[in-house]
Amino acid sequence: MVAFSPYEILNRKRRGEALEAGEIAGFIDRFTAGEIPDYQMSALLMAIAIQGANSEETLALTRALLASGESWQIAGLFDFIADKHSTGGVGDKVSLVLAPWVAACGVKVGMLSGRGLGHTGGTLDKLDSIPGFRARLTKAEFEQCVEDVGCVIATSTEGIAPADRRLYALRDVTGTVESIPLITASIMSKKLALGASALILDVKMGNGAFCRDLETARALTRSLIEAAAGSETRIEAMITDMSEPLGVACGNANEVSEAFEVLAGRGPADVTELTRAQAARILVLSGRFDESSALRELDEARSSGRALEQGKRWLAAQGADPESVVEGKLPVSRDTVEIRADRGGFISKIDAYGVGMLAIDLGCGRRKQDDVLDHGAGIMLDRKTGDQVRDGDVIARIQIGKRAADRDELRSRMASLIAIGSQPPPPRRLIYETFKQDE
Amino acid sequence: MVAFSPYEILNRKRRGEALEAGEIAGFIDRFTAGEIPDYQMSALLMAIAIQGANSEETLALTRALLASGESWQIAGLFDFIADKHSTGGVGDKVSLVLAPWVAACGVKVGMLSGRGLGHTGGTLDKLDSIPGFRARLTKAEFEQCVEDVGCVIATSTEGIAPADRRLYALRDVTGTVESIPLITASIMSKKLALGASALILDVKMGNGAFCRDLETARALTRSLIEAAAGSETRIEAMITDMSEPLGVACGNANEVSEAFEVLAGRGPADVTELTRAQAARILVLSGRFDESSALRELDEARSSGRALEQGKRWLAAQGADPESVVEGKLPVSRDTVEIRADRGGFISKIDAYGVGMLAIDLGCGRRKQDDVLDHGAGIMLDRKTGDQVRDGDVIARIQIGKRAADRDELRSRMASLIAIGSQPPPPRRLIYETFKQDE
Repeated sequence: MVAFSPYEILNRKRRGEALEAGEIAGFIDRFTAGEIPDYQMSALLMAIAIQGANSEETLALTRALLASGESWQIAGLFDFIADKHSTGGVGDKVSLVLAPWVAACGVKVGMLSGRGLGHTGGTLDKLDSIPGFRARLTKAEFEQCVEDVGCVIATSTEGIAPADRRLYALRDVTGTVESIPLITASIMSKKLALGASALILDVKMGNGAFCRDLETARALTRSLIEAAAGSETRIEAMITDMSEPLGVACGNANEVSEAFEVLAGRGPADVTELTRAQAARILVLSGRFDESSALRELDEARSSGRALEQGKRWLAAQGADPESVVEGKLPVSRDTVEIRADRGGFISKIDAYGVGMLAIDLGCGRRKQDDVLDHGAGIMLDRKTGDQVRDGDVIARIQIGKRAADRDELRSRMASLIAIGSQPPPPRRLIYETFKQDE
Repeated sequence: MVAFSPYEILNRKRRGEALEAGEIAGFIDRFTAGEIPDYQMSALLMAIAIQGANSEETLALTRALLASGESWQIAGLFDFIADKHSTGGVGDKVSLVLAPWVAACGVKVGMLSGRGLGHTGGTLDKLDSIPGFRARLTKAEFEQCVEDVGCVIATSTEGIAPADRRLYALRDVTGTVESIPLITASIMSKKLALGASALILDVKMGNGAFCRDLETARALTRSLIEAAAGSETRIEAMITDMSEPLGVACGNANEVSEAFEVLAGRGPADVTELTRAQAARILVLSGRFDESSALRELDEARSSGRALEQGKRWLAAQGADPESVVEGKLPVSRDTVEIRADRGGFISKIDAYGVGMLAIDLGCGRRKQDDVLDHGAGIMLDRKTGDQVRDGDVIARIQIGKRAADRDELRSRMASLIAIGSQPPPPRRLIYETFKQDE
């Protein structure tokens, strides 16, 4: 047997050659054990980010990260339990709506979620804005919460894919975040460690997402699905629009508030429609519904108030005061800067990436790992793409939190992210493609 | 002004974008100052190794490495002083012959040389095999040696391009050695720090060299010449053959011995021819000779014994016993394994890379930075490509040093590196291309 040589592995990947599964596993294992230093790992990450990795290499990397930690395999604990993951966007509070909504239909949901990355928000950051909410759960607590109220959203613990945690920290500072094989292995190692019965992947596409075009989104979707080869989890995926923020609220507390508006039967149409479509696929995958009965059940759960009640019971189960999500009790900043239309017309574009970056600067996200968030800060998009406006109408509001801010600068920066045209833009397409399991 | 962001620089280079000169300088300066960690530097090295770098980026990198340390600018100290550099090969002892030979013609030579890298030998490792030889000189000692005897070969001190030293150590363990821009910046930063009046670059080509083909060799040559843009040093280059080892001896002490054989008017034809061609270019660049008078002067210096005398005076000036180079006094191992022809015919190929790797395993070179060399070990190629042999003739000898060795294994490994054909191979072309300055 040839001796394991990080140097030769790096040389070969630099030249664009494919690595053996055992070489990838060996590299990750030794990195986790502290035998391979950060500077060799970061060189491999850059080589993979540029040269790519084939399906076998990506699968090997996923499994190596998975093998670095615990494997919960929650599918074995319940008849059926679903997981859902988004590749990240701006204003994406779908998980907060989906978990209780699906549970209100009698189908269990369990997720391990993460913090915000780059300009995209994180489900955990949003939940942290609810006073008392406990996201750090043991496996036993996670199980108990599902038993008690039918759904749970917890933080990924140190025990899940610890190698991914270290890898991600390196990628974050070495410009190697944008890589389909690295994104795939990072996401799927954690999803396979949780091991739900079914997983819905929401692959975001548009200027507010990693995937800027359909080709990239399809490639990432295929890569994510392939990396689950051989697992027990049934996987479906949707490619959905992230060319403008999802919903009206972008931030943390304001997004939680919006999520519960949707559960209550109000809230923005796009959040409602997208969550409803993904929730329906979960109901179908549970085997207890077909597509039309799933949609009927979801609509009934929402209109009857069961979805909202389920949401409150879930919050209570994770330690929060359920009434805190009623408008006015969450720490949403009331100090706002209004952005008004400088002409009449139709909103033709809202720059999702720009809004995400502005939100970070307001304190909704992190520039560095140890940045402290301002949960009350955020952005409200009073008008969405396609809406007609008159000159002087308020089209957006910035909720200024604890950070010092130049209000005029914020106003002009936000205004520059919204385009007003004289004609209505073509209707927004929310879901581009759906990848279903053979039924 | 935009804040300096290593992350953005890495992202852009990953995508194949060109960096600004100021960004490259900033990255190197901060790396040298300890503000940019190894893992970010190695990610940049990998990105450059894969995506390449244009002339401006390579020039910026070269200048940043140069600016990290001292600049000797020896051209200002003498009327004319030449430097010579080889990109590295197997059996390449040209510098040891060239320095005293040119000095014997009244033209000064000063070099700062390095250790062996990978499978290629290093001039300093060869000189270290001479008892008493002092390679570590201060700038003042370097100057004095040139004043006293007309030539000097010293080790590059810590003060010369210290950033390159750290960069090289990282490249060596991250699979990023084979990169034209990185090789260029590493070589030229040190050459420009020395700052001779003229520099001859010997760009090796063949399986024993970094450049395996003429296209790569031309690209490296152009890159090296371009990286000296704006300097006072006149640069010429030759692309020369490294498809078989140069000369007969591969090792350390045995190569010194061979170098002095050439100075004495004996020695292998290829070493003599190549050194004579490069030495002639230096004499022409000095302005005191034309091509034909240069060759006449060189031949006269060698046949008269002046070249050998000069060689001995040079060794004495750097602390060695000049008589030690006379055959028998250098620590050449006498414990040999003979390799014999297993058929009659013509030597058609001697695998330079394979010989270089075998030499490392004998102790002539390093696998790790702190490996201790065995100066007496080596390989002697009793027959060279094109030579006729009879079945049973000795075609090579392995000089076994202090390391335990399986003699049968060494014999069969060495035999596998030499091909014998039934027909004479086409004549070897020693010099492929010469890049001269406009005269």
